[in-house]
Amino acid sequence: MAELAPTPRTRLKRRSQRGSYDREVVNAILDEGFLCHVAFTHEGQPGMIPTVYARGGDWLYLHGARANRGLHALLEPGHDACISVTHVDALVLARSAFHHSVNYRCVIVYGQAQEVIDPDEKLEALRLVVEHTIPGRWKDVRWPNADEFKQTLVVKLAIAEGSAKIRALGVIDDEADMSQGCWAGLLPIRTSYGPAERDPALAEDIPLPSYVENYARGLQVDSK
Amino acid sequence: MAELAPTPRTRLKRRSQRGSYDREVVNAILDEGFLCHVAFTHEGQPGMIPTVYARGGDWLYLHGARANRGLHALLEPGHDACISVTHVDALVLARSAFHHSVNYRCVIVYGQAQEVIDPDEKLEALRLVVEHTIPGRWKDVRWPNADEFKQTLVVKLAIAEGSAKIRALGVIDDEADMSQGCWAGLLPIRTSYGPAERDPALAEDIPLPSYVENYARGLQVDSK
Repeated sequence: MAELAPTPRTRLKRRSQRGSYDREVVNAILDEGFLCHVAFTHEGQPGMIPTVYARGGDWLYLHGARANRGLHALLEPGHDACISVTHVDALVLARSAFHHSVNYRCVIVYGQAQEVIDPDEKLEALRLVVEHTIPGRWKDVRWPNADEFKQTLVVKLAIAEGSAKIRALGVIDDEADMSQGCWAGLLPIRTSYGPAERDPALAEDIPLPSYVENYARGLQVDSK
Repeated sequence: MAELAPTPRTRLKRRSQRGSYDREVVNAILDEGFLCHVAFTHEGQPGMIPTVYARGGDWLYLHGARANRGLHALLEPGHDACISVTHVDALVLARSAFHHSVNYRCVIVYGQAQEVIDPDEKLEALRLVVEHTIPGRWKDVRWPNADEFKQTLVVKLAIAEGSAKIRALGVIDDEADMSQGCWAGLLPIRTSYGPAERDPALAEDIPLPSYVENYARGLQVDSK
């Protein structure tokens, strides 16, 4: 399905030209990030955890210690989660305070999370979390042992109900403000990675892998 | 009060050495950011908005169009908001998949939001939002007129119930994994701003202000 179907809570009422239900748009935003904010309801009040995620096809995977209260709250039947991934691309400096804005790309996904119990699917989810965050890493590391596997809670949520919202525009000012004698424009915001810092305990003959040296976001992870 | 008092939902149960209720720690994290995620409960289900915020003393200020559904959900009596600000500082590449981690600094604040109605307080909140995002900007721009003022909803939330959580460590691996022949270390993550892009409609004789050219985060805004 190339488009997510709008629902009452994902239908974009205001500035709907900034919204998209296109899976390619949604997936590109999800693939560029690795940190999401997960909102949940517990005993009628909201809670939130910032956490690492992975996308695998039409699923989002989260993981954490089994003792993590927030992840458990996601699994309460009838309690949806709401996951947001946001990239801030620029500050928009207009001539009026009112028209100041931010260029951003954001995805919000809603749904009932479920625990990943099947061992094969769970291991694949953990692989995806490592590979989504650091593509190329999984083959080099020691994989989870039985005890670590047991300690780790993995949950998944279908990317089925959600939307993307994007502002990628220049300065928009009222005509009457164009003579305001102040600077106007964009201040781009960029995220950079590195240079890498070696663990002091690392043997000297172990070289920096190219996936660390040339680390970049926004790449598609192999679905295997 | 130098410390926020722990409550059942802010008490750090796991890895409590990473947590802090110190207002200075909390404020430094809040002052470095300008984008927060706000979680709320509406009709029993969670919702979330990424939005710009400002800190003014012991208050967080949010604003948006009066038609914004999320902001209105925050104002429902008996419905707390949960606000998170997260900075990701490094990826932590361990020798085992299990010990991979992220260095981060995060604040979570809970509380009942309220609308800012008093016009003086509301204008000051809008000034804080501009100055928190772009220190030095307010004096240069055209301030909100009566119509814009009316269209804008400003809400505030006391920084009273919350905590900071920080991971600022190197690689932590199990002793048995130290001979795993893979690279280990940190991949630092940095956010950079600029170079600024002039609005094409800007008069040529208007220079780039130093607060844009030398833009940096983490500075304290004048409380006036």
